[in-house]
Amino acid sequence: MDTNRIVFSGSGGQGVITAAIILAEAAVLHEGLDAVQTQVYGPEARGGATRADVIISQKPIYYPKVVNPNILVCLTQEAYNRFSGIIWPGGLLLTDSHYVKKQGRIEGRHVTLDMYQAVMKRIGKPIVFNVCMLGTLIGLTDLVRADSVMKVLESKVDAEFIKMNKEALELGIEIATSGE
Amino acid sequence: MDTNRIVFSGSGGQGVITAAIILAEAAVLHEGLDAVQTQVYGPEARGGATRADVIISQKPIYYPKVVNPNILVCLTQEAYNRFSGIIWPGGLLLTDSHYVKKQGRIEGRHVTLDMYQAVMKRIGKPIVFNVCMLGTLIGLTDLVRADSVMKVLESKVDAEFIKMNKEALELGIEIATSGE
Repeated sequence: MDTNRIVFSGSGGQGVITAAIILAEAAVLHEGLDAVQTQVYGPEARGGATRADVIISQKPIYYPKVVNPNILVCLTQEAYNRFSGIIWPGGLLLTDSHYVKKQGRIEGRHVTLDMYQAVMKRIGKPIVFNVCMLGTLIGLTDLVRADSVMKVLESKVDAEFIKMNKEALELGIEIATSGE
Repeated sequence: MDTNRIVFSGSGGQGVITAAIILAEAAVLHEGLDAVQTQVYGPEARGGATRADVIISQKPIYYPKVVNPNILVCLTQEAYNRFSGIIWPGGLLLTDSHYVKKQGRIEGRHVTLDMYQAVMKRIGKPIVFNVCMLGTLIGLTDLVRADSVMKVLESKVDAEFIKMNKEALELGIEIATSGE
């Protein structure tokens, strides 16, 4: 696909903005793509909902806002209730089954996986939940390669935490490929 | 002013994206303003230049990209060389005198301060250079209040580092008000 329009949503502290920045930098710095990463803070931000948008494209990006994402990630019930309606028909919706209860159907593919519990069981640190989610997302799509994400993590994360981030990324990929 | 268009620029690792996010969240969460925060990654990102844009407004923001900032911060020579020309006439340009050598004149107010050396001397940790710069910026302008920035830092930073961040913010304000 020439252009992917991705929205990550959840609550402050789940690391969705960081995940969006890591994905954008992986695409730009290691895959030669263009990217725009945006936080549009509206009134919902004051209610605790966080939204981070990424556009990744093989072509220059002229309009940086995502209106209808073809890939949507919702990590809280509030984010799901608020944003699931904006998905592009035929798009991919990824939700975390620990936080989000599916309600109704969307016009696309809805994948719900227990990323949070997997992180807590295998790694025991909620801080890498977002990296696991990113692993799951790249396991489900062909957005960027895992080694591109890993290179960005290595440039951003303190040396002592790199191993844990790598485990979280690999765990996410494993979850994506082992079962839905 | 109804709307401020701010561009932070520097190199990866100086924390300009984090500074932009902190400023946007301070405006939205603690001052009731609207904000958009964007990273537009073009080819220059692969050369190591980082740019993070913030729009802060009392009104809804329809176009999230900054073309001509009325406030521009350049933390490397490369960022200054690349971006100083885009400043809005009459705008404020803040550069770090440790990293940036002034060349020519801009159509606005150019403030150059040695924020980096001040941080290294007083605190000794380059990691809070970006918070000091944010302090200087809010000391020079009326973008947001210091306590709004501090609340965001308290929500994001590990407890053990909050004191250091507060010192860096206060140091930045001190630099802004004590001498140019």
